[in-house]
Amino acid sequence: MRNILLTISYLGTRYHGFQVQKNAVTVAQTLQDAMEILLGRREDIKGCSRTDAGVHAGFYCLNFKTENPMPLPRIQRGLNGLLPWDISVRGCREVPEDFHARYDVLGKRYRYLIWNSPARSPFWEGRAYSYYPPLDLEKARAVCRAYVGSHDFSAFCSVKSDVEDRVRTVTHCGIEREGDLVTFTVEGDGFLYHMVRIMVGTMFWVNEGRLSVEEIPAIIASRDRGRAGKTAPACGLYLDRVFYDLEGLRWEEGKDLG
Amino acid sequence: MRNILLTISYLGTRYHGFQVQKNAVTVAQTLQDAMEILLGRREDIKGCSRTDAGVHAGFYCLNFKTENPMPLPRIQRGLNGLLPWDISVRGCREVPEDFHARYDVLGKRYRYLIWNSPARSPFWEGRAYSYYPPLDLEKARAVCRAYVGSHDFSAFCSVKSDVEDRVRTVTHCGIEREGDLVTFTVEGDGFLYHMVRIMVGTMFWVNEGRLSVEEIPAIIASRDRGRAGKTAPACGLYLDRVFYDLEGLRWEEGKDLG
Repeated sequence: MRNILLTISYLGTRYHGFQVQKNAVTVAQTLQDAMEILLGRREDIKGCSRTDAGVHAGFYCLNFKTENPMPLPRIQRGLNGLLPWDISVRGCREVPEDFHARYDVLGKRYRYLIWNSPARSPFWEGRAYSYYPPLDLEKARAVCRAYVGSHDFSAFCSVKSDVEDRVRTVTHCGIEREGDLVTFTVEGDGFLYHMVRIMVGTMFWVNEGRLSVEEIPAIIASRDRGRAGKTAPACGLYLDRVFYDLEGLRWEEGKDLG
Repeated sequence: MRNILLTISYLGTRYHGFQVQKNAVTVAQTLQDAMEILLGRREDIKGCSRTDAGVHAGFYCLNFKTENPMPLPRIQRGLNGLLPWDISVRGCREVPEDFHARYDVLGKRYRYLIWNSPARSPFWEGRAYSYYPPLDLEKARAVCRAYVGSHDFSAFCSVKSDVEDRVRTVTHCGIEREGDLVTFTVEGDGFLYHMVRIMVGTMFWVNEGRLSVEEIPAIIASRDRGRAGKTAPACGLYLDRVFYDLEGLRWEEGKDLG
């Protein structure tokens, strides 16, 4: 049985997240439809992560098992020919039979793009969140520093989540401005439901003076979702990179987001 | 009479170019509709350039005259509230009464974005041209160098054009790669109908070995449109900058295209 790992990029705007759902179009289902036509069988797929409705992915990994002997380049080209314009297969490789795109994840990197200008951008509509108040980068950087480390991130987890162990390690968190586009980047061993979006929303509250940087450690320690900021909108969020212990699983950074 | 200069960005996909047309939706007309609601009168607007259907603009300038005393920030915010998502007013200022957005242009810069990968990008669909054969940057740079200078660019002008003087000066032409995204940049005192797109199309032909770099000077000298390459698609082209002899007319480079 072959075990095949696909790396894909998608613009999440038209999808209700990755995971198959009963009454909504998702990325997984759209992929399975294409795979069924190409490979002659509807295969089960294992995604590296659920992503929320409207969230994008520059680099998403999934695996599936198949008996079909089709060469890898033909699988990639064939799927790209069948998939809609907003999903693209960027890589296709064979992996050991016990590889699992979700259980084998060592870490992930997310990016949150913010269009920070009084005038919106036609180029970033639906692809970055338009936040009008000028972002104080120094303050924002202090917030990022407060997130780094191993913490119980319950205060940064949607109340809808039923995950029990909420300790996660954030290994890197930073923010950069390029003109009016601000990129928030966070890397860690795992993320809770809405965690990145609540981290960004809390940063906005600090920027607006509704919270101070000094309160962040106490908010984390409180494990109280009610004390952190609002969940930032999905349209700015990108799953940017998934880390595995696999040789050569990367492509040049950043090129997918331009 | 006030003379007002607007700088706008737009994603050209849904428009048949800038200039007002009888049976198609254009950027100018969409702007005039918004201005009519905001200022109470349908004003005449002078654009810096016609752009083709589907061409984008990071930085487009136009001026109009009005008796309306509305403060400039209110004009900008008001128009942005009325315009669709793919047109944005980025700047608004008063200029001398004899300023004309088209006649006063000293030069322009265009960018042509090429997504150069076997797998298409969901993020650049309709915003860069997907060109699959690997681009040889060294060869492409040699083509760019051959374009620089004052030439009669008839060979790089659509046969539909009725402009008589076809001598233009290209002051800069270059190409850069960032991951899979390749940016062709050209700057000059003026451009003929389809000129940039034919320059890019000819570069593609050289890349594919259908023409050699050494032939470019002879193609220019021939003034024969039939000898240059195909016109590259509109979706990759951006009017990136318009130069005037006006103080302070710029915003930080690149931030509009992200």
